[in-house]
Amino acid sequence: MAAITLYDLDVTGGRRPSPFCWRAKFALAHKRLRWDEVPVGFTEKDKIAFAGSRTVPVMVDHNHGDKIVKDSWDIAEHLDEAYTDGPALLGGERGKAFARFVAGWTNVSVHGALFPLVVADIHAAAHPSDQAYFRESREKRLGMTLEAAQAAARDSRLPAFRATLEPVRQQLRAQPFISGAAPAYPDYTVMGAFMWARTVSALPLLADDDPLNAWIDRMLDLFDGMGRAHKRIA
Amino acid sequence: MAAITLYDLDVTGGRRPSPFCWRAKFALAHKRLRWDEVPVGFTEKDKIAFAGSRTVPVMVDHNHGDKIVKDSWDIAEHLDEAYTDGPALLGGERGKAFARFVAGWTNVSVHGALFPLVVADIHAAAHPSDQAYFRESREKRLGMTLEAAQAAARDSRLPAFRATLEPVRQQLRAQPFISGAAPAYPDYTVMGAFMWARTVSALPLLADDDPLNAWIDRMLDLFDGMGRAHKRIA
Repeated sequence: MAAITLYDLDVTGGRRPSPFCWRAKFALAHKRLRWDEVPVGFTEKDKIAFAGSRTVPVMVDHNHGDKIVKDSWDIAEHLDEAYTDGPALLGGERGKAFARFVAGWTNVSVHGALFPLVVADIHAAAHPSDQAYFRESREKRLGMTLEAAQAAARDSRLPAFRATLEPVRQQLRAQPFISGAAPAYPDYTVMGAFMWARTVSALPLLADDDPLNAWIDRMLDLFDGMGRAHKRIA
Repeated sequence: MAAITLYDLDVTGGRRPSPFCWRAKFALAHKRLRWDEVPVGFTEKDKIAFAGSRTVPVMVDHNHGDKIVKDSWDIAEHLDEAYTDGPALLGGERGKAFARFVAGWTNVSVHGALFPLVVADIHAAAHPSDQAYFRESREKRLGMTLEAAQAAARDSRLPAFRATLEPVRQQLRAQPFISGAAPAYPDYTVMGAFMWARTVSALPLLADDDPLNAWIDRMLDLFDGMGRAHKRIA
């Protein structure tokens, strides 16, 4: 058994789309930790009930008394406090504020622009037993069918999604990673959004000549190609 | 003569609207430096030609061989390198990456959403000798008259401006300043946008119950009320 058990959102084909779980996996790899994954379908809330959580990621740290940590942000904080070898994931107070700001911006602006572009693809990828729940809960949020939301978004909202990422392009003009010379939690946070889309959707999110593509390639190369090796769309 | 000379954008009534100059002034105050201001109208490019710049802020540091520094970012970097007493403005590599990211986000997303909301007010505030230049250059960028752009933005784009600031609201749920327990360059960067509007426009940018108002109050209180004391709209 590895030192860490991670409960990770699972869809068909062994694919793992959750952007929040990807933050946790990049964080674990950054800390050079090994982990066992427990796949959790959208409706398999019973698997994580022990943690008092209804959402993944949930982490159990067997090096620290089987400590249960839920929520990707709390996982990052725990890892930085409990595993102090190597470069910081968050860093000191200023580094933590940076990571928090990028997380807020990603959750609101990037995910908000991305979600409708791939929502029907996520549904199509989900386990058949999860599809009714996913459709009902997300259609309530969107106010229309998943297919209508995705079609409308692809008709009109791809330019806005690409524009949302302009601060990252500006950042990458000055340095190879969002966090500086090397990647850290702010990079993993934004990359989680691209992993979300990449695992379930064939939609080309970026133009071929987008300078972000080179950063995505660098992120896919990290940790022996962890992201690249992961199953793409079926 | 103070240790620093700052060339600062000037409009009627002694008001100083430039968001980039406000970044420099908050940065100087953070470093507990005193400075003399040279007012520069939109068309007074001759006043800053000595620096090889066509835009303010331009700073001359008399403590360091009358070193000329142009551009608000370069001013912040110079101040952190040249004045190492007290808390860092940017901080180490991670802190600098944080400040750069917030600057990119502010320049693109916040200024982009704010500019059309106040552009006719900026014109109205400008010195009469600067108004034709301001109108011509900004109408070319906007593709319509300043008045039409501002009216259209106020009709439809105030909610989008407020939504753009959501990552800051999320940040301030966890800590009193964007930068952490105390303000630093990321706060000054975002506050520059509010000073820009505050000095020239009576438009209520935020709803009365917006949690950002408490942060703005804290920012206006800094440095003996530097921002609050500054002349508001005429």
